[in-house]
Amino acid sequence: MINFFSINGELVPKEQAALGVTDLAIQRGYGLFDYFVVKKGQPIFFEDYLDRIEQSAKWLRLELPVTREELRVQVMQLIRANGEQEAGIKIILTGGYSDDGYSPEKCNLVILEMPPPSYPASKFEQGVKLMLYEYHRTFPSAKTINYLVGIYLLPQQRAANAEDVLFHSEGHLYETTRANFFIVTKDNTIVTASEGILHGITRKHLLRLARHHYAVEERRPTLEELHTAKEAFISSSTRLLMPVVQVDDVMIGDGKPGPRHLLELMKEEVERYLES
Amino acid sequence: MINFFSINGELVPKEQAALGVTDLAIQRGYGLFDYFVVKKGQPIFFEDYLDRIEQSAKWLRLELPVTREELRVQVMQLIRANGEQEAGIKIILTGGYSDDGYSPEKCNLVILEMPPPSYPASKFEQGVKLMLYEYHRTFPSAKTINYLVGIYLLPQQRAANAEDVLFHSEGHLYETTRANFFIVTKDNTIVTASEGILHGITRKHLLRLARHHYAVEERRPTLEELHTAKEAFISSSTRLLMPVVQVDDVMIGDGKPGPRHLLELMKEEVERYLES
Repeated sequence: MINFFSINGELVPKEQAALGVTDLAIQRGYGLFDYFVVKKGQPIFFEDYLDRIEQSAKWLRLELPVTREELRVQVMQLIRANGEQEAGIKIILTGGYSDDGYSPEKCNLVILEMPPPSYPASKFEQGVKLMLYEYHRTFPSAKTINYLVGIYLLPQQRAANAEDVLFHSEGHLYETTRANFFIVTKDNTIVTASEGILHGITRKHLLRLARHHYAVEERRPTLEELHTAKEAFISSSTRLLMPVVQVDDVMIGDGKPGPRHLLELMKEEVERYLES
Repeated sequence: MINFFSINGELVPKEQAALGVTDLAIQRGYGLFDYFVVKKGQPIFFEDYLDRIEQSAKWLRLELPVTREELRVQVMQLIRANGEQEAGIKIILTGGYSDDGYSPEKCNLVILEMPPPSYPASKFEQGVKLMLYEYHRTFPSAKTINYLVGIYLLPQQRAANAEDVLFHSEGHLYETTRANFFIVTKDNTIVTASEGILHGITRKHLLRLARHHYAVEERRPTLEELHTAKEAFISSSTRLLMPVVQVDDVMIGDGKPGPRHLLELMKEEVERYLES
């Protein structure tokens, strides 16, 4: 049972976990977050996520109110207090309580725990559809809480039966609202944007594994390449790798779901992490 | 003394006014707000602001949990409870408590009251400087809580001794982070963007007053026009009209502050509103 969240280092019954309404996330949407999966009570790729939180904070000029070690301890205390072996953890760092409603103050640090996400097996077996939208995220390399466009598009996304929205700009494909995007060309080259995106932790590990089996080009795929790609997929901490078989009206390749063996390799990588 | 805020229709001592951390403003920066000035206990141009909140909510597909009349009553109850004749009121509507951390739920409605802003008289007498930044707001016609860019730029803005940041894109001038922007050309034409901006309530009233004295062109001024403009100014609910005498390194006209009599006309308009 998840009974607690952590607010500025204190475990709080989750129904009472709150931030004052002058917080800059509520007044101005100013904050960052990160999210990782917990298996067997262990945060997967924990140090990678701690790195990224530090990078996002640096980008947004927010000061973490704790050391890296203290943050690690707070996360582990929350996991222990809730007693769940499998979960998702979200760390949010906000601009703090701002009297003038604009200037960042001492940051608020919130840690939420939630049930692990689950996806129907069919999505991995049959692949999913993405919906295109022309947009380029503001400060894409920082994991800010700004999801204005993605949430705004939810009704269209659901109407299109799309798993996620794929952002493109000036003919180039970047990322989805919550995942990195990859194509596999006919000559078995994996192509994925390396700039203008959030650098996914799963993306990093996937590319490392993929280099043993594929050529990898870190450049933005073009819209045209959707028509000639053999396969496509998205990566995220919750999905690891999910095949994409359709983008808007474009069927990818022969419609067969993307590189299944790479998903298996990634699952093995997570197991190796847990055993190390 | 401002002792209370209003949370979903209830007056709450302001130190206890809080939202649970699963609110979509905290998790995803998803929400909208509006802000207006109170004089002699009366919200100035109240119906205009209620109109705009309804428009912003429609844009973001958020449902106001109250009728317009109930919202009006909640605002007046808060003003009465705090007993201040001069103040600022901020209404925030968030995406609500979201279990999946992404889908909007029943919105939370927060009303904050704060001391009225005050600007040194010198800013009106001598004019201010703006700093340029290339950016175009996402969904500019809705007053979303997304101020990622403006707050990120605060240290640069302060270092430049700039009053605000003026957004431009592809050679055109749009708006500042929190105000509309206008130039006055040598032939006494007021030029201000009418698309790709937030339609300020003060902007609306100013333009109506200005049409008796100036030609008005509602189109985006260009960067080049900064070099030939006679005057420039910004408008907002707190400043009404503030002269701009410098943008980055460009001095506007002969450096004398913008249309002073238009500011006087606007002050009279506010007085007329109070007496009506």
